[in-house]
Amino acid sequence: MYERIKGFRDFYPEEMRARRAVTDELEDVARRYGFREIGTPALERTQLYVDKSGEEITDELYNFTDQGGRDVAMTPELTPTVARMVVARQQALPKPIKWFSTRPFWRYEQVQQGRFREFYQTNVDIFGSSEPEADAEVLAYCADALTGLGLDGEDFEFRVSHRDILGGLLEAFDSEVEVREAIRAVDKREKIETGEYYGLLTDAGLARSQAEQFDALLSTDDLSELVEFAGTDRVEAAVENLENVLDAAADFGARDYCTISLETARGLDYYTGVVFECFDSAGDVSRSVFGGGRYDDLIEGFGGQPTPAVGFAVGHETLSLLLDRADARAEGALGTDYYVLTVGDTRPVAARIARDLRERGNMVETDVSGRSFGAQMNYADSVGAETVVIVGERDLESGEITVKDMHSGEQTTAPVESFPDSDRPTYDDLA
Amino acid sequence: MYERIKGFRDFYPEEMRARRAVTDELEDVARRYGFREIGTPALERTQLYVDKSGEEITDELYNFTDQGGRDVAMTPELTPTVARMVVARQQALPKPIKWFSTRPFWRYEQVQQGRFREFYQTNVDIFGSSEPEADAEVLAYCADALTGLGLDGEDFEFRVSHRDILGGLLEAFDSEVEVREAIRAVDKREKIETGEYYGLLTDAGLARSQAEQFDALLSTDDLSELVEFAGTDRVEAAVENLENVLDAAADFGARDYCTISLETARGLDYYTGVVFECFDSAGDVSRSVFGGGRYDDLIEGFGGQPTPAVGFAVGHETLSLLLDRADARAEGALGTDYYVLTVGDTRPVAARIARDLRERGNMVETDVSGRSFGAQMNYADSVGAETVVIVGERDLESGEITVKDMHSGEQTTAPVESFPDSDRPTYDDLA
Repeated sequence: MYERIKGFRDFYPEEMRARRAVTDELEDVARRYGFREIGTPALERTQLYVDKSGEEITDELYNFTDQGGRDVAMTPELTPTVARMVVARQQALPKPIKWFSTRPFWRYEQVQQGRFREFYQTNVDIFGSSEPEADAEVLAYCADALTGLGLDGEDFEFRVSHRDILGGLLEAFDSEVEVREAIRAVDKREKIETGEYYGLLTDAGLARSQAEQFDALLSTDDLSELVEFAGTDRVEAAVENLENVLDAAADFGARDYCTISLETARGLDYYTGVVFECFDSAGDVSRSVFGGGRYDDLIEGFGGQPTPAVGFAVGHETLSLLLDRADARAEGALGTDYYVLTVGDTRPVAARIARDLRERGNMVETDVSGRSFGAQMNYADSVGAETVVIVGERDLESGEITVKDMHSGEQTTAPVESFPDSDRPTYDDLA
Repeated sequence: MYERIKGFRDFYPEEMRARRAVTDELEDVARRYGFREIGTPALERTQLYVDKSGEEITDELYNFTDQGGRDVAMTPELTPTVARMVVARQQALPKPIKWFSTRPFWRYEQVQQGRFREFYQTNVDIFGSSEPEADAEVLAYCADALTGLGLDGEDFEFRVSHRDILGGLLEAFDSEVEVREAIRAVDKREKIETGEYYGLLTDAGLARSQAEQFDALLSTDDLSELVEFAGTDRVEAAVENLENVLDAAADFGARDYCTISLETARGLDYYTGVVFECFDSAGDVSRSVFGGGRYDDLIEGFGGQPTPAVGFAVGHETLSLLLDRADARAEGALGTDYYVLTVGDTRPVAARIARDLRERGNMVETDVSGRSFGAQMNYADSVGAETVVIVGERDLESGEITVKDMHSGEQTTAPVESFPDSDRPTYDDLA
């Protein structure tokens, strides 16, 4: 017996049905917002990730040399790929470019609850608008997708921050600060000890007293205090941008899900403006469910024209944890509209009925195993058939079939000629 | 600028839309037949493929050693994976097991028309029934899926054969015949010269005169001639099974698409009974569009209980060639139901209208780029908007919006309070 690989999963029909319901909702809402589906390859050149994230990224890649000698990697995330695609057709694509897709990604990481080596994401991005409405549309999409999945404002919150507020505050101190390092420290704040946190900030160049002052500023409710502290155009503009995004989010119906949280930094270096993370309001899912933000410099960094961008990726695995916690799971049970049961030599009629029912869009099963009445009934029950249509030899002699409602157990007979309904061509017409 | 890897493709929205339409149709019809979706990993142990197909399979695999020292391969096909999954839960799964899935696979092959290194398949399988109805249901599914895509009996045919007829005929000759090798020769028959074909058959153990006799038997229209020639139970049973499958296919509405074609052998060793290939009736797509058949021994070979199985994989790339040839392609153009255009400071109202329209299931875009009236109109046109709703400051003063039909160019005004329709809560209720 062969075993599957650690961190990779098989999805049998019941689990797959629940996953499909989530994917369909995420994608349907994306389509309603005018996002367009794209398809992307499973392999890219390893260099794409090394250039963007440094050589150490290869520690968590499934990378290898292919039979043509190319150093390739199974894609660990979508952003470099979509950036490559935007650059390749930048002139031809109408702006804003609004794309979504759902697919697996791969990272060689420690397997734990909600974290696998093969994991699924729905990515949603807007390229070509620096306006606050673009950031707000992404937040509004997220809110509509989550409420569409049965969650509400008691279940989740978007913690919203701005990279330029953090960067601008750090610049305002009278020290040489490694801004990237300090922002990474903020990103880790919730996960590490206070001592370690301040250690990282002082490593980044802040004096201990400055680090404490910086940390106090992060928890303010009053953004004007930050503008006043920094006294720079950069922080003033960033605060104004954040407020504009939240105003637009209000118009778009997503403001109520947002809280300003400057402690939310996002670990990735490429973010440039508003960033946000979705959290479980009940706190049971301890880490960020998903997140995203603005990354205005990436396309240029990939050799394209300067192109503002904002987007995010919903990880289906952490989203599943939130849906489970909130008890908002779609029913996992299998469903079948009709089972058409044959008794004796009635296959031609049973097959005609099954086809007519399928043409009307129903899920219909019929016997393909030469089974007895009882075995067929058991199978119909096991696949959750709503209705069983019994096509028996004796019934057919009097031109009838039996229709059994599997919930009530009620049985009625119907003339075979006019079942499923009288609009269909008669059996003689078909013969 | 980064380049994508040879044989791998990016799908931009217009192409993706056409591909999505095909996938949706293949999957919707599968669901109507009661097939259940499964999800499967992108990596398996390389050994799985070596055991099934021999060491030479590694020449066309993307295989490598992962960071945990496992010899793994990007899955080149689905069958070994579903066999592994059936074996893992064989007792618990109700029979017949009817599964489908759509996903990419990877093979390091020569790239040519309709053949890529990353390619997509919809796989459909039934496990646990040896009855002819199972084979026929697979054929009926294929026929319904293809007609659902806009093809008809003039466009495609299923060439149906039976492995035991071929094997039984070969056994009937007074020679030691390597049946596998001879069947592989039959599979190659259309692609190679006559001399080479007979060479392969004589290599497999037939005398030249026997090879010619065998080849003549393959083209008979009269299956009873084969039974008579072989004089064995095996061929008699195989012919009866093939006839039963075709009878069931008649009841299931698929017989008209089938022709008996013993020259159709399928290259893979694991087939055991009925095999079939779908061909372009016009002959423009020269090779098989897709194929499948019965493989009753595979599950046992993977360490499971003996379990009959029948299935096939539709390759989306060759299917695309057929759809293109038959001019049965879904429209590739992008569509948008509504573009909500803002003029002046009308974002709250425009956003409310966009949300109301989306709640009704429409695809709706609105401005996220701070654009002028003209630029918004151009964008609405570029994304194929059916209707543009113009929300202007001056109009709003008199409580109106303008609705423009983008086909006719006709403009009408409507009271903002009751747009999109009067059922919605009034704007005052929302404020």
